[in-house]
Formats: sequence, structure tokens, C-alpha cells
Amino acid sequence: MKRIAIIGLGLIGGSVAKAVRRNSDIDIIGWNRSRESLTEALHQNIINGIWDKKSVLEADLVLLATPPAATIDFLKENASYFKPGTVITDVCGVKTSIVKECEPICKENGLYFLGGHPMAGKEKGGFLNSDESLFEGASYIITPTEQTKKIAIERVTKLAKIIGAREISVTTPEEHDRIIAFTSQLPHVLAGAYVKSPACLERKGFSAGSFMDVSRVATADEKLWTELFSLNAENLCAEIDTLIKNLAAYRDAIKNNDSKTLAALINEGCEIKTRDN
Amino acid sequence: MKRIAIIGLGLIGGSVAKAVRRNSDIDIIGWNRSRESLTEALHQNIINGIWDKKSVLEADLVLLATPPAATIDFLKENASYFKPGTVITDVCGVKTSIVKECEPICKENGLYFLGGHPMAGKEKGGFLNSDESLFEGASYIITPTEQTKKIAIERVTKLAKIIGAREISVTTPEEHDRIIAFTSQLPHVLAGAYVKSPACLERKGFSAGSFMDVSRVATADEKLWTELFSLNAENLCAEIDTLIKNLAAYRDAIKNNDSKTLAALINEGCEIKTRDN
Repeated sequence: MKRIAIIGLGLIGGSVAKAVRRNSDIDIIGWNRSRESLTEALHQNIINGIWDKKSVLEADLVLLATPPAATIDFLKENASYFKPGTVITDVCGVKTSIVKECEPICKENGLYFLGGHPMAGKEKGGFLNSDESLFEGASYIITPTEQTKKIAIERVTKLAKIIGAREISVTTPEEHDRIIAFTSQLPHVLAGAYVKSPACLERKGFSAGSFMDVSRVATADEKLWTELFSLNAENLCAEIDTLIKNLAAYRDAIKNNDSKTLAALINEGCEIKTRDN
Repeated sequence: MKRIAIIGLGLIGGSVAKAVRRNSDIDIIGWNRSRESLTEALHQNIINGIWDKKSVLEADLVLLATPPAATIDFLKENASYFKPGTVITDVCGVKTSIVKECEPICKENGLYFLGGHPMAGKEKGGFLNSDESLFEGASYIITPTEQTKKIAIERVTKLAKIIGAREISVTTPEEHDRIIAFTSQLPHVLAGAYVKSPACLERKGFSAGSFMDVSRVATADEKLWTELFSLNAENLCAEIDTLIKNLAAYRDAIKNNDSKTLAALINEGCEIKTRDN
């Protein structure tokens, strides 16, 4: 790969750009809806140039690092400006709906799409918070389908390695969404639900690590996460219901002063957590 | 203070001993139910001596660093062996029941009790995991009552400062238990309930920081936390119910595809989290 294009220079796009810049000689062409991050990235020598939108862009790989709806809209509007044969990938936290929409648009335009999801983030977004080490040791999920070209897998895998990912996880878009509802989306719902207890406003002087841990991602961007939750509604609602059921089991054991059941619940949690950790 | 006694050399007692040793010239007398940690602490020169149980112990401050029931039992059995005028404090994560039991035992024996709760911990216990820096920057809660002597507050405060606590939070035992149910106990219930989702066993390659954060304390000691949850049942059940109600609000908004309500819920969580953080 000699040149990649990164569309969207927020936390994820900016961090990929910075990692590629530091770890390789690949040229980076950037584009961003607002001009500020673009000129900042150019000024910091993170990107080599700005895409003059609606001119033909030649790149080996285009990384769409925008929220789900913006990713689909961008492709609809701009797919005809990418040179046929270009590999296109995205970074969205949901995959079924993205792949379903993006794959046919790319196919129509002779582009090769592969859904991707680098598993790292921060509770604060934007280019300002982007970090060349964000993906070091992280998992990079790709979701090929029967239509996926080998070259798309090769180039996205290469990018993942360049930015420092520890492993490439290959799965279907549907499996991705089912498991991510538990590992990523549920903790975000949880953080927000947790801090809504009235006691949260009295926490000063009464909190330690476990409060910080559970509440950390409560500051997540409302627009992005509203989209992500909505696009994975069925899986996420099922996970919320499972959690409510499991919380109720603790509550009932505590309420009934049933120490034996309570100890068994705690022990079971410990056993699951330490398995394959 | 010239000499303190630490009863129980687990994670908390061991960490206090190590911090006192590093940060002061105070003599430390230790006692532990099992002999192993005691001889290890003596061997590492963390304690100056082992209390020959049931001989009179002269110390300016006795720190009971054992679980709730063990703390009460220990006092019942040994309060008569402490020199009258000695200040006694504990480190239990619940305070109402502890203060109610310990205060009269101490009073009968001419000892000055003050409930305490240094707000730090780890997901793994024992002297082996104790750490001289555990309390650095932490909050140290004390729960004086109308019967508390000034000298007890002075000595416990001094200990808190020696071990590196950032602030002393003064509250009633009842307020402590109400707020701690939210800041500490609920995250422990949550971690255990969270990992019980069947998806948890498929998480390999699909998890990042937010999974780790929520699940971290799922490995907590089952005996200790069964005791702590049971001794604060009413407050904790109320917090679990509040969390379930708040989780259900997210689920309903997601299920009804009500993006406006969902965005408002996320936004509200963000606003609470960033307030007075």
C-alpha cells in the first residue's frame, strides 16, 4: 500500500492517521466535514494532503471513519469518485446494517467493501483526543461476506497491523453485532443508567476505583451512541433484559437474606470472569 | 503516635502496615488468624512484632482490618486485653451495624471506638497483593457518633494522613451506608450480574476497555462481599431497583425506536458524570 485515504478525522480516523504516519511510509489523504481538524492534521504533518472532494481519488484503501448514517450517506454521494478497484472499509460499531447498505453501493461502483471495527475508543472524541497508540494491543474485527474480495481482507489486515492491532478477529456482521451488544454497547448503557441514581450527586469523598470504572463511558457522544444503539436494537435490548434479570437475582437473594444463593451468585461471576481472561 | 496494632494482615491491613512502615517511624504490632501472613510480614520487616494474643497490648491505635463479623467477634473476645484509653478503629465497608456493635463493647472496656473506611481496594485480596501505595490519593471516611472521643478522631486522621489519603470524609454511619451502596457495592453486584450474560463466554477478540472496566471487580471475594451486601441490604436493594428502572428506560427507548428520548437519556448521563467530577 502506497496511499490511503481517511474520511473523517475524529478520534478514530485521527488515531489511525497518526499511527500510520508514525509506523509506515504510506501517504495519507484526509477529508473531514469540518475544516478545522483537516487543517490541523495537515499543519501537524499527520496527513499529506486534503482530498479535493469530487475529484477522482486514487488510493489503495479508503477508511471511512464516520458514524453509521454519515458513512452510508458519504458512500452514496461519493462512491463514483473513487477509482474502480479501490478497497473501502469502515470503522462503525455496528456491522449488519452497514454491510447491507455499503456492500451494494461499492459493488455498483466497482469498489471492494469490507466492514471493519477496530476495538478501541475513549470516553472523549474528536481529533484533539486522537492518539497514535490507541490501537496498540487492540482487537481489529473484520466482517467479510461471500462477496468480499481477498484483496480487501489483505489491505485492511495490513492497515490493522500497521496501527498496532494485536489480533484480527474474523466474524460475520450478525455475530459481530450480537457480541458487541454485550461487550461494548451494554457497558455504555450501563454507565449512563448507573450515574442516574440520586446518590451519584453525593459521591464526593465516597468513591474509589469501582465507581470510576462503571461510570467512565457515561460521557460518550449522544449522537453517535443513539445511532449505534438504534442500529443494534434487538441484540442490545436482549442484553439489557438479561442484565436486569441477573441483577434481580442478586436483589432477591439479598432481600431474602439468602446468603447461600448470594455467595453462589458472586462465586459464579468470579468463575466466569477468570475463565479465558 | 508511637505504636499501632494491626489486626488482620490481608489486602487492607497489609497495605496500611506497609504504608506506615514506609512513611513513619511508628512501631507496628501485627496479628493475623493464619500464621503465614504474620511471619511473612515480620520477615519483610513490615511489622515490628507479633501480638501474643491475650496478653495486654499497649498501642495508641488498634486497626481492626478484618471482615465485619470477624471484627465484631474479635472485639468481643479481645477487648479486655487492650489497655484502657486505646483508640480502636475498623476498616469495614459497612458502618451502621459495625458501629452499633463495636461502640458499646469498646465503651464497656474503656476503649475509644471510631468507625472508619479507607476507600481503596483491589480485585484480589490477601497480604500478597497488599501495596504501600494503595491509599495514596484515596478518601478515608470516618463515622463519628455523639459518643466519639476527640482523641479517636485525631489518631485515625493521623493514620489516614500517614498512609497517604487525600481527604478525610466525615459522615454518619447511616449516610455512609446509603452512599456506599451506590459507589462501591452496586458496581460489585453489577460486575457479577454483567458477566453472567451467555455472550460473555464469546468475548475473546470482541472486547475493549469498557468490558474490562465493568467486569473488573467480578472477581471479588465471595465471603466478604456476601457479608457486606447482607449488612447493607436495604440500601443496596434500593440501588439495584433504581438501576433496573434506569436500564429499563434505555431499553424502552431503544425498543420503541424513540431516538429523541434515547439521546436525552445519554445526554443526561453525560451531564451527571461531568458534574463535580
